[in-house]
Amino acid sequence: MPDNLDAALNPKSIAVVGASDNPHKVGGRPILFMKNYGYQGKVYPINPARAQVQGHKAYPDLADLPEVPDMAIVALAGEGTVQAVEQCAGMGVKVAVILASGYGETGSAGKGVQDAMLARARSAGMRIVGPNSQGLANFGNGAIANFSTIFNDLPNIPGPAAIVSQSGALSQLIYGLLRKRGVGLRHCHATGNEADITVAELAVVVAQDPAVKLLLLYLETVNDPHKLAEAAAIARARDLPVVVLKSGRTPSGQRAASSHTGSMATEDRVVDAFLLHHGLWRAADPDDLVNAAELYLKGWRPRGRRLVAVSNSGATCVMAADMAEEFKLPLTVPAEATRAQLAASLPGFATTTNPIDITGALLSDSSLFGKILQTVGRDAGADLFFVGIPVAGTGYDVEAFARDAADFIAHTGKPLALSVPQAEVAAPFVKLGVPVFGSDRQALRALDQLAAHTALMRRSREPAVAAPVHFDPAAGGKAFLNEADSLALLASNGIAVAPSRLCRSAAEARQALRELGAPVAVKACSSEVPHKSEFGLVALNLAGEAEVAAAFDAQWRQLGQMKVAREGILVAAMVKGQRELALGARVDARFGPVVMVGDGGKYVEALKDFVLLIPPFDADEMIAALAGLHIAPLLHGVRGEPALDLAAVAAIAMRLGEIMQAGRGRIASIDLNPVMVKAKGQGAVVADALIELIQV
Amino acid sequence: MPDNLDAALNPKSIAVVGASDNPHKVGGRPILFMKNYGYQGKVYPINPARAQVQGHKAYPDLADLPEVPDMAIVALAGEGTVQAVEQCAGMGVKVAVILASGYGETGSAGKGVQDAMLARARSAGMRIVGPNSQGLANFGNGAIANFSTIFNDLPNIPGPAAIVSQSGALSQLIYGLLRKRGVGLRHCHATGNEADITVAELAVVVAQDPAVKLLLLYLETVNDPHKLAEAAAIARARDLPVVVLKSGRTPSGQRAASSHTGSMATEDRVVDAFLLHHGLWRAADPDDLVNAAELYLKGWRPRGRRLVAVSNSGATCVMAADMAEEFKLPLTVPAEATRAQLAASLPGFATTTNPIDITGALLSDSSLFGKILQTVGRDAGADLFFVGIPVAGTGYDVEAFARDAADFIAHTGKPLALSVPQAEVAAPFVKLGVPVFGSDRQALRALDQLAAHTALMRRSREPAVAAPVHFDPAAGGKAFLNEADSLALLASNGIAVAPSRLCRSAAEARQALRELGAPVAVKACSSEVPHKSEFGLVALNLAGEAEVAAAFDAQWRQLGQMKVAREGILVAAMVKGQRELALGARVDARFGPVVMVGDGGKYVEALKDFVLLIPPFDADEMIAALAGLHIAPLLHGVRGEPALDLAAVAAIAMRLGEIMQAGRGRIASIDLNPVMVKAKGQGAVVADALIELIQV
Repeated sequence: MPDNLDAALNPKSIAVVGASDNPHKVGGRPILFMKNYGYQGKVYPINPARAQVQGHKAYPDLADLPEVPDMAIVALAGEGTVQAVEQCAGMGVKVAVILASGYGETGSAGKGVQDAMLARARSAGMRIVGPNSQGLANFGNGAIANFSTIFNDLPNIPGPAAIVSQSGALSQLIYGLLRKRGVGLRHCHATGNEADITVAELAVVVAQDPAVKLLLLYLETVNDPHKLAEAAAIARARDLPVVVLKSGRTPSGQRAASSHTGSMATEDRVVDAFLLHHGLWRAADPDDLVNAAELYLKGWRPRGRRLVAVSNSGATCVMAADMAEEFKLPLTVPAEATRAQLAASLPGFATTTNPIDITGALLSDSSLFGKILQTVGRDAGADLFFVGIPVAGTGYDVEAFARDAADFIAHTGKPLALSVPQAEVAAPFVKLGVPVFGSDRQALRALDQLAAHTALMRRSREPAVAAPVHFDPAAGGKAFLNEADSLALLASNGIAVAPSRLCRSAAEARQALRELGAPVAVKACSSEVPHKSEFGLVALNLAGEAEVAAAFDAQWRQLGQMKVAREGILVAAMVKGQRELALGARVDARFGPVVMVGDGGKYVEALKDFVLLIPPFDADEMIAALAGLHIAPLLHGVRGEPALDLAAVAAIAMRLGEIMQAGRGRIASIDLNPVMVKAKGQGAVVADALIELIQV
Repeated sequence: MPDNLDAALNPKSIAVVGASDNPHKVGGRPILFMKNYGYQGKVYPINPARAQVQGHKAYPDLADLPEVPDMAIVALAGEGTVQAVEQCAGMGVKVAVILASGYGETGSAGKGVQDAMLARARSAGMRIVGPNSQGLANFGNGAIANFSTIFNDLPNIPGPAAIVSQSGALSQLIYGLLRKRGVGLRHCHATGNEADITVAELAVVVAQDPAVKLLLLYLETVNDPHKLAEAAAIARARDLPVVVLKSGRTPSGQRAASSHTGSMATEDRVVDAFLLHHGLWRAADPDDLVNAAELYLKGWRPRGRRLVAVSNSGATCVMAADMAEEFKLPLTVPAEATRAQLAASLPGFATTTNPIDITGALLSDSSLFGKILQTVGRDAGADLFFVGIPVAGTGYDVEAFARDAADFIAHTGKPLALSVPQAEVAAPFVKLGVPVFGSDRQALRALDQLAAHTALMRRSREPAVAAPVHFDPAAGGKAFLNEADSLALLASNGIAVAPSRLCRSAAEARQALRELGAPVAVKACSSEVPHKSEFGLVALNLAGEAEVAAAFDAQWRQLGQMKVAREGILVAAMVKGQRELALGARVDARFGPVVMVGDGGKYVEALKDFVLLIPPFDADEMIAALAGLHIAPLLHGVRGEPALDLAAVAAIAMRLGEIMQAGRGRIASIDLNPVMVKAKGQGAVVADALIELIQV
């Protein structure tokens, strides 16, 4: 079946059902916009009451058209919409754009009507945008099947940015924010209820438009992560940055989202992991979504994060240093030659460290600005440049500063972000295409994002070593593997586990102690008792045979009293580590396998000190992610302790990802807590494991 | 000695040394500004080359003036400044405002000249503003001893806000940011190097100006915390909000600050604790400093934090819910009556939960805006109101929305913050004095700040029960108290400590075990060995007499080998708790006693999971602060555990504050780790203590 998405963005002919001669009505706007934005295809207004609509010949009914249009914009309310969709499907229209609201977002009755429209469309191979949609807008060809007020209220500026948004209001908000920054648009699409066509599907097509240089997405739900992954791969292959605003981050937000779109909630940290995995940058809010737009569009892709900060105010230097530390942008130490030149340029009382304080001397010597920029621009140790001008005005040669900044950009090709809060001071910079921000924080955040996102886009994962996964699915009907089976599954896949013996008698338990050496743990095994401690089925640190035998007997009896399967009693060596971590993996209903590494102990859920990654990932990615843990300061050795063996931790985590992949549809989750992590080079050993199965 | 600060802000006569007829030179600006801003006192330009300066009679020298001016603005460079200061001091000028740079901020030579000027001024009772200062500006009386470009570039709007800033550039930046929001200024002072007059000193005076309704401070160092505390007390007494931007938050920022002002760094979390203690709100950056200005200036002081959010976009509702959760603003559940009225006003498909989604229906029915605001305004369960209009324009009756919002404010007196990113949509609201923000985040952050700062300003501490502190300073020359003495000091002040006996023989140790019951800890006491573990001087969990005696002997021998004072061996009961916390106190060189409560264990320094408070504080404040800990989720009981006895923890912390206060000048620090905290109602017991003395 053709996906018809090309017809959605490049329709050769467009019917407007419910066309209005009033260019400010919903049924009039698209016709006005197509004229204003130069659409070259055929426009067919459908209006039984008029011969002409906004200068186009009008038709009383879709049936009267001279050809089957590629697209129909349905600008009717209520039952009219359903009939129009029926008629479009019947005649072979490729895409129907449904603007009306009152469907899936209103509850089950509306959802029923929406589902019926979708079923009819599907049966005919017709695609649907919406309902409850602002519509599609391709400024590249003028196909504006969209009634956004803002396309009317702001003059057209074509440009390289593209927006694909679930929400129509947000698509306009983002459009407005980009335009405030002088950035023009190539696409602006809003999918509404997504009965059929999703943001991710449109992103796949838009990412292939060579005129698009920056793609911004707004999502409340990710219904088709594989499509978003496809868009990400296409974008990455052509160095197209994609920035995503995904709302519904919190339980409150998710409740609000489900009340207005009826969509299902996803755990937000999994979304983070998914976006990170695919090199998509996640923005915190609409301003953040557009904040780095100009830096991306300059084509800047810095190799590093080393920052030089310059200001005519010492206070701005102090605050820039604070923020650089907050954003983890290292302030590069200027090279000896740079410092010598700075000392020559700068008045005696200014500092030549970084941040560089030009001081108020800039007022009396305007040439300082360009001299300093030129000097630091030659320093090979700097990747990113920030200039803060908190105040200028009368007496300052701002035009010269702007020329110097533009020269810097032209000659170095390095990222430069200015913070100039005064609009009149900013104007000359803006005129010359120098990226100017309203605050130091915005400018530094944009530089941070540019550098971090570039690293993410350029990241090449080490190809996974495809060791075969051993997984015997013969556990029919069980919800859990007992600990012995869980450990065995891990061990057979090369993960180090505590040595153990599964015993069926006290004598075997005594023998196990002799073989393993004291101390040992004694733990009952029953696939019916996944959580053993609360039933007294775990005894730790036993050293004597009598103790071990007594523990065996007690646990055996307890299993009997609980009337559960007695699959044996595990006697396991007590392994030691420098730190107990917890590792795990589970299947997210939407995003598939997710791997977790965090601090160990009984408070994993309460303290939530863990990181999530989507497999496959490599060791570097996992080790980098661990820097986000609260306990991160302990990982590399404190108080004279050696660093932990994070490579071993990463190896287990990677292997968990492979096991989850291979056990897809059979393994629900793997929970390793504790994992005894030793000093660097000495490995990590799983001391307890629980594998949950998907019951089939 | 008179502090002359009144003369600094309300001088009856001002001489300008180095006066320029060019109103855009440093020596010309103040004269221009005093004319423009209506200064009624005498202005005496000093200029040997001219008879008149900007229309004023000029004098060749200070000595030629008809009277001794209250203030002299010194607008000279180099040696001229030193001579002018000398002359001013000699003739009895009250305040000299030194604009020139090149002094303390440039290094030791400049600092020497600065110190000499200060000494001369002090000897004559003259106060100095600066050097390296932008100067003072009191718009209330037009005394503008200040050369800020921005006073020239923006037309004068008098108003209720005041700025006192170390940095001149920042004072102008903040001035500009306030003016962008339509907020007028009463004061704008910048102190520069603060050889003499500080931000805090000026804040004390400005806080007493009844025309000032909002006071904003920028600081890089807090040189005189007692003055800032005084300003805070004055402000609090008259319900004047004070917001502080303190830069140099990070080591990088502190390095940058010290390189440009030579000032000493302070640990930033102590600054946080100090500001919190005094009800001063700390802003993160200049935008944040002014963000809530309009809400404060409306006089709004909400009683709570319960939020109602309204938008014409479902997406904005979702994001507002996300941000509300982030800012910990609970979305109030509308009362039954409110919901019924909303359901009547709103089209069937909109939600009547909170956030309230007006949906695109607002385009066809403009009355919805006012109806909904009126309805929610009557709900007694709501304290704060947010309205997000991400997009409007042609077809929307924005003028009516603005009137409805203004009506809401007039009739409810409740805080309302709008987010309206489109300037042309915002304009009608601004015109009617409705606070409008450029983004949802800014609006919600401002509401959060208003509510939290109001609570802070209204906070009344429970008066401390003045139990006398027992502290015997007879420990001459010692750096530390040994553990027995440390515990005894705590116990004598009512803090529960582990029962113990100080033993001088193995027999006494055996006897102690019998008295205390097993298990016990055996710990060597020597004021010369504050950190015992690393020398094998701690044995835990000993149960038998033989073990205890052996530990005694081993530790006694070890002390002998170390050739340190053998002050005894402590045998202490092993007390248990549900969680081990660490408590402590120390004297900060600038801010005095600071009390710490955090997670226990050996990683206190590495993980920094602690909170700091400045004493005195009450139990509520300490318990509220503990919510900021990483381990906060464990404090109130998880996994079926009971809540911890936080009241007992707070009581110890409060008592530590009292002991530090009483031991001022003698006790450097107190370190209690671990403190065994039991379940609620069962107390907390100190298991180990170390008191460090100030050697005299």
